[in-house]
Amino acid sequence: MAVSLEKIQNAHVRIAPYINETPLIRMHHLDDISGCKIFAKLENMQKTHAFKIRGVLNRFLQMEEETRNRGVIAASSGNHGKAVSFTAKQLGIHATVVVPYTASEFKVEEIKKQGAKVVFSKVEERMTMAKNLAERHGYINIPPYDDEDVIAGQGTVGLEILSQQPGLDYVIVPTSGGGLLGGISTAIKRASASIKVYGAEPSALPRYTNSLSAGRLTRVPAKETIADALVTDQPGEKNFPIVQKYSDGMLSADDETILKAMELLLSEGKILAEPSASITLAALMEDKLDAGPNDKVCLVLSGGNAGLDYFANPEG
Amino acid sequence: MAVSLEKIQNAHVRIAPYINETPLIRMHHLDDISGCKIFAKLENMQKTHAFKIRGVLNRFLQMEEETRNRGVIAASSGNHGKAVSFTAKQLGIHATVVVPYTASEFKVEEIKKQGAKVVFSKVEERMTMAKNLAERHGYINIPPYDDEDVIAGQGTVGLEILSQQPGLDYVIVPTSGGGLLGGISTAIKRASASIKVYGAEPSALPRYTNSLSAGRLTRVPAKETIADALVTDQPGEKNFPIVQKYSDGMLSADDETILKAMELLLSEGKILAEPSASITLAALMEDKLDAGPNDKVCLVLSGGNAGLDYFANPEG
Repeated sequence: MAVSLEKIQNAHVRIAPYINETPLIRMHHLDDISGCKIFAKLENMQKTHAFKIRGVLNRFLQMEEETRNRGVIAASSGNHGKAVSFTAKQLGIHATVVVPYTASEFKVEEIKKQGAKVVFSKVEERMTMAKNLAERHGYINIPPYDDEDVIAGQGTVGLEILSQQPGLDYVIVPTSGGGLLGGISTAIKRASASIKVYGAEPSALPRYTNSLSAGRLTRVPAKETIADALVTDQPGEKNFPIVQKYSDGMLSADDETILKAMELLLSEGKILAEPSASITLAALMEDKLDAGPNDKVCLVLSGGNAGLDYFANPEG
Repeated sequence: MAVSLEKIQNAHVRIAPYINETPLIRMHHLDDISGCKIFAKLENMQKTHAFKIRGVLNRFLQMEEETRNRGVIAASSGNHGKAVSFTAKQLGIHATVVVPYTASEFKVEEIKKQGAKVVFSKVEERMTMAKNLAERHGYINIPPYDDEDVIAGQGTVGLEILSQQPGLDYVIVPTSGGGLLGGISTAIKRASASIKVYGAEPSALPRYTNSLSAGRLTRVPAKETIADALVTDQPGEKNFPIVQKYSDGMLSADDETILKAMELLLSEGKILAEPSASITLAALMEDKLDAGPNDKVCLVLSGGNAGLDYFANPEG
């Protein structure tokens, strides 16, 4: 496998000066709701309020200066775009971000705030548009997940989980293309075979559930979900075999439960997580994980980029 | 001084099985706003979502069973009442809570939910009413702050801060009657003279600022504030000499800054703190503390009992 534990460890050393080592906390107030002992890795407190800068930094910091000077482009439902925009600015790189029309206005504003140029596209065409613009202008295309350096960068979350909280039984990872799940499951399983690592994807978009069941990459129909960072329609090509090898399987949750989980994370847990992060708690609320009351379960709260308008009208 | 470090250490052993050891985290996203390195002790994640159960537990657990059976009563702007209600139920004690008309509906509902009987009064009459009902029915009056066992119980927050985060320069403590400030400043100053401990009170109710300046207990006119857990009009009699001896002084903030701090704690910090806890950040935003960019400042986020309606209409 091309993404080794050593590559993840090297990535951690490389990116450590640029990231926050985010807290991993015990969240007692969610035990009754979930039926197990809940911990949370707070990547919503990462710079740009999402884990995505880890992978982007690991990619950028290995680029030659000449390559950096050509500028970069990224296709993203928001958090990856924000990470590219933020990190490019830190390193003095020109950045363009392709964003689907369905991305929340809040996230698009956040990307623009960092200084990147924003271009809109249909969800299913965003990768192609980024590729075309890259060819036309000579930009380096920074993939959101289907890249070994990006996967290794996201895997640094797994190294921190291991060192911050020994004795965990389960780690639940929000999953779209599989960058975060691939990286974390590699880091954790290479260090400790006893910890179970599950992905969590929207019930409407079971791209990993179906692909793992079929034993090959499977595309699902494009659908909208409140988890707007988890809209990929198939697993990444480099990610899928890693997830096949190292993860213990997939959980899922529907939008109604995700919104309820997000509200409970805030009202009971006092933590603001975005819907795509709240899916980890939602999957437990839907009884998708067979964990007992003494099992220690760590939710990877991958991002916190949610406007407060969710709560102004929590029904919709 | 009647509240010793030893009493606080004994309180910690006594109450430890009943409380959460709440997280103390680094909050990088607040550094620019505050001009220093921000840490936070998350008592908004305590049981009942406020520190108050520490003092109440330390009081209840030292009562004889015969005394407990008479029932308890408390006067409270909310969090103390909720703590008494919650803790009494855990220990099978009958509880009555006197609540001012100005307390938020959200907090009153929380108190009722635990099972205590709720009685309303004017803010300035709540202590007297509790005293009268205690005499009439034989209830034990559980004071919110003016009590050595309560002060020692709140001081356990200070012990945890010391063990969780060595090397702090400042600790900022929300202050009303002075139970939390008295306890924390005793615990911290007896262990380390180099850490500065400040209280933070609403600008509208400068009861400690004025009392410390006058060198004696001073009453201020009753005023409303968004920090509805910090409405006491004078320092507690037992608390004042402790604060005089061990704290380094008072900071303050007005309601507008408190609301802004609360919103920043959520939007930037991803933490939901109530206004009375957010006053700690607000005081820094008003430049009330002379701390430099390398100073490590720990905010005691004393509670998280705020309805989401604050953010539905953040202007007011």
